[in-house]
Amino acid sequence: DSGALKQVSRILNGGLSPSDIAHLLESSPPRQRTLLWNLVDKKYEGDVLQYLGDDIRAYFLSQLNAQELAHILEDFESDDLADLLQQLPDTVIQEVLNTMDDQDRQRVEEVLSYPEDTAGGLMNTDTITVRPDISIDVVLRYLRRHRNLPTMTDSLIVVNRRDEFIGTLPITRLLVSNPTATVREVMDTEIEPIPVGLPDTKVATLFERYDLISAPVVDEQGKLLGRITIDDVVDVIRDDADHSLMSMAGLDEDEDTFAPVWKTTRRRAVWLGINVVTAFTSASVIGMFEETIQQVVALAVLMPIVASMGGIAGSQTLTLMIRGIAVGQVSGDNIKWLLNREFLATAMNGVLFALVVSGAAVAWFGDLTIGLVIALALVINLTLASVVGTLLPLVLKKLNIDPALAGGVILLTTTDVVGFLSFLGLATYFYA
Amino acid sequence: DSGALKQVSRILNGGLSPSDIAHLLESSPPRQRTLLWNLVDKKYEGDVLQYLGDDIRAYFLSQLNAQELAHILEDFESDDLADLLQQLPDTVIQEVLNTMDDQDRQRVEEVLSYPEDTAGGLMNTDTITVRPDISIDVVLRYLRRHRNLPTMTDSLIVVNRRDEFIGTLPITRLLVSNPTATVREVMDTEIEPIPVGLPDTKVATLFERYDLISAPVVDEQGKLLGRITIDDVVDVIRDDADHSLMSMAGLDEDEDTFAPVWKTTRRRAVWLGINVVTAFTSASVIGMFEETIQQVVALAVLMPIVASMGGIAGSQTLTLMIRGIAVGQVSGDNIKWLLNREFLATAMNGVLFALVVSGAAVAWFGDLTIGLVIALALVINLTLASVVGTLLPLVLKKLNIDPALAGGVILLTTTDVVGFLSFLGLATYFYA
Repeated sequence: DSGALKQVSRILNGGLSPSDIAHLLESSPPRQRTLLWNLVDKKYEGDVLQYLGDDIRAYFLSQLNAQELAHILEDFESDDLADLLQQLPDTVIQEVLNTMDDQDRQRVEEVLSYPEDTAGGLMNTDTITVRPDISIDVVLRYLRRHRNLPTMTDSLIVVNRRDEFIGTLPITRLLVSNPTATVREVMDTEIEPIPVGLPDTKVATLFERYDLISAPVVDEQGKLLGRITIDDVVDVIRDDADHSLMSMAGLDEDEDTFAPVWKTTRRRAVWLGINVVTAFTSASVIGMFEETIQQVVALAVLMPIVASMGGIAGSQTLTLMIRGIAVGQVSGDNIKWLLNREFLATAMNGVLFALVVSGAAVAWFGDLTIGLVIALALVINLTLASVVGTLLPLVLKKLNIDPALAGGVILLTTTDVVGFLSFLGLATYFYA
Repeated sequence: DSGALKQVSRILNGGLSPSDIAHLLESSPPRQRTLLWNLVDKKYEGDVLQYLGDDIRAYFLSQLNAQELAHILEDFESDDLADLLQQLPDTVIQEVLNTMDDQDRQRVEEVLSYPEDTAGGLMNTDTITVRPDISIDVVLRYLRRHRNLPTMTDSLIVVNRRDEFIGTLPITRLLVSNPTATVREVMDTEIEPIPVGLPDTKVATLFERYDLISAPVVDEQGKLLGRITIDDVVDVIRDDADHSLMSMAGLDEDEDTFAPVWKTTRRRAVWLGINVVTAFTSASVIGMFEETIQQVVALAVLMPIVASMGGIAGSQTLTLMIRGIAVGQVSGDNIKWLLNREFLATAMNGVLFALVVSGAAVAWFGDLTIGLVIALALVINLTLASVVGTLLPLVLKKLNIDPALAGGVILLTTTDVVGFLSFLGLATYFYA
């Protein structure tokens, strides 16, 4: 009823911040989501869109025409605007750009010209720059002429007359400096500007490593292009970390938790389809040993143990490597050490669990041969899993294939195949 | 040779920042790590320790005596110091605290009194506070008396004479305000202070949602206790996201990538040990059907397909839920919708892949019955996987068990057991 709706609308537009509304939309199933979105006041729509996940945002954007879009996007910062435009069809982008004034259009086109996942795609153009030879007092008076400063302004950027980056002037330092000192005397020259083409994950590493709030972005000639702020970097960090987790289950990090049934079904089908192929691969290995299994049915009972232990051991190595690569700890220098460590640790555990499992198997089936076979198969499968788990992500990365997405599937297929092959193969040999 | 060592030492202590050195240590195998650490200049040791992961830091700390520790820890911020002390044995903590002067000790004891994973454990006590009734001009003159302001000072905190939080005064606003205005007229009262007991992941959500750089922390009476800065929050976000990824493979998010062989072997053995138990559980299910398998060996060939398809489908649901819970999107209101969606999407895929797999099985073994059995078993296992994948993380959370750590093991055991039971059970029925 409309009374309840009015109340919801009042709460939405009065009591909640745009980010709260976005969170509420992201936490709602499709029907409620559309209902809520229609209640959001036009003037907040743009702000709310900025905080939404890609998947959901793309949907709402697709419902708007170019005029509505242009109106909503008026107050966007250039980096957010570019992000958002990149999700639209080219014709719509052109329409939206056409409604803008020249200066705004130029800014957006500038940011649009850089790939989304580089420093250029992350940067804003709302920098406040000063020259090195003026005094702090002049800087203070210059700032006072502003009605407000861009959000996340923790430092001014010092440039020469060719707009080339020279240094930064933290505003906390501005506040404690002698007003008669020059910018050059007070500025910080330790911060390296970020090259416009640097991948966004590398940008995140720099922010984390040097505890930055904002950092200048320059082109190859050292000319200042804009600045990157920590709020956008936090999104990169979150996405980056989410990416590994979600990819390992064949999901997308932008996946809408409340995607409709049909969309979910289609996306998941792809992953299940890949798994059908790998599952039949493993099955065909078992099929090679039908006679042996008929002779000793206990093999069918025990064979999943060999496969799954290999999978578990390999997944641990693989996950450690994927994380290590993501945070930049793993490189050519230390792979040999890592491979060695993983091999030794897994081999020791392989021997330990070979004893445990074969002991249990012998006790269960009263057959010493089956104990010997499963012990050998376990050691083979676990040590091989450690080698594959260590090297596979590096090989995939070299081939430009995402290790988090493809690594698990390939590893588990390998441990299944090797597990069944070694166990049933050895059994065929010993029982023949 | 000592010439090379001297050169490395020069590079370490001259050209690299403490965070770079920390990254280098984290990326080095144990022997090189110790060698490098010994080359780090005493005066940088403290800074480097701050940037190291928990695991590695604990090791280096254990090598120092209380006196050396106290010396190194002199310049630490109270939150970092508290973090670090929490890793030490109680007797060493006391020794270190005894070497401090009263004021410092009090600060550290204050932060130590809050759990590490709450706002209290994250906060610094280095706030700059001002009263509401003074003028901006007075604030500016007060600030100028400082030699420098604490890092990440983006706003001053406005308190009354009982030290109770009233508002914040962003320094960007300070710079553009009329000097004769009072703090009260200019300050921001929209920011809610953070309660000292708020869990750190909730703190991170607030920072992400409101794009904060720093935020005040208060006790139950609204008294200002300190402030939290974005650099520490970024660590929480990174750890939090890493936690899900690493836990799902039974690893710790603080896991040292270059942990020595022996330590790695012991830690991994625990996880493999758990898996041995679950693997034998699944095996015992197969063991119930030895006779049927002997009769129709094709069952042994195909049974891993049913188990693994269930595992894949369930893992996708589980991962989506774990992420949804972690970012606070999943709650009592929408579980029903989610369960429904997961059930429908998985059931549809279940039917689709039942057709695909049974078609392939019939073609392979020329046996219509086996096609029927595997189709039914797949639909049963997949739909059940979707229900378990959705509800399990919620149940575990209620029981205070980490869904990321335990969810995967329980889910995969379930899909194995149900997969084998339904497939072999149905086969026994149809072939009897």
